[in-house]
Amino acid sequence: MRVLGIDPGLVHTGWGVIDSSGASTSRAVAYGVIDTRSSDPLSTRLDAIYSGIVSVIERYRPDAAALESVYFGLNAKTALSLGQARAAAILATARRGLTLGEYPPATIKNVVVGQGRAEKEQVAYMVRMLLGLDHEPHPDHASDALAAAITHLTMTRVVA
Amino acid sequence: MRVLGIDPGLVHTGWGVIDSSGASTSRAVAYGVIDTRSSDPLSTRLDAIYSGIVSVIERYRPDAAALESVYFGLNAKTALSLGQARAAAILATARRGLTLGEYPPATIKNVVVGQGRAEKEQVAYMVRMLLGLDHEPHPDHASDALAAAITHLTMTRVVA
Repeated sequence: MRVLGIDPGLVHTGWGVIDSSGASTSRAVAYGVIDTRSSDPLSTRLDAIYSGIVSVIERYRPDAAALESVYFGLNAKTALSLGQARAAAILATARRGLTLGEYPPATIKNVVVGQGRAEKEQVAYMVRMLLGLDHEPHPDHASDALAAAITHLTMTRVVA
Repeated sequence: MRVLGIDPGLVHTGWGVIDSSGASTSRAVAYGVIDTRSSDPLSTRLDAIYSGIVSVIERYRPDAAALESVYFGLNAKTALSLGQARAAAILATARRGLTLGEYPPATIKNVVVGQGRAEKEQVAYMVRMLLGLDHEPHPDHASDALAAAITHLTMTRVVA
């Protein structure tokens, strides 16, 4: 099974594709980040996120997609911006027929690190270990996207 | 010139298409609302808004689109939900090549009613008068979408 993890943001949208390869291991296929320019109109930036995710889907043909659900405690301005970026990414997966898993931040940290209040650096370190990478994936957005994908593979295995 | 006005919302997205017909009058071509079910997954609901706006564009072939910009003072939950709906509508217009005008609520009220703090009912009444409709457009979301379209036509005329 191949999973696309996404960490959406209006400025930086991280993505990462992983394969399950055996009962308990996974490997990274590719990861990266889609950047948009704050000087561009909103419609251009949303289209860049949408088109970027569509390109990743067409290139790597994942079976499913996953992202972090929104924790509250955001301010309204951040929530609006995140909502717009999330919708562009979600629409790209929906219109390419992928199922989408959404996981709360604490669930992702629990699955990847083993505790729900782990720091960002611990998540990045464990993403590297679990995927057998020779360095931690940069930027953070790609690492967070890979963490969402690992969570989806793990949860799917547990349920299946 | 033909303008599509949109009033995006995750539950109800109003839309309205108007034509300029002469130096100072406009007429309504069609208007309506796209509803989504709160029991459906977010990806299904965003796709319904996106696909609904694409259908309206393909059917009525507007030259431009317009919507209200976001006023702050929303709470984070509302802002997230509105952001997601807005992105689906904006992406539909962007991917069909329409230019998009965004106008603050006070500008729309000023153009349509003549004062920036008008009530919703005054906007609906003036939309009816300006477009020569025999009743006020329902639901409110369609009326607000038509008001955004009227604003775009008016502002374009002033600038041109």
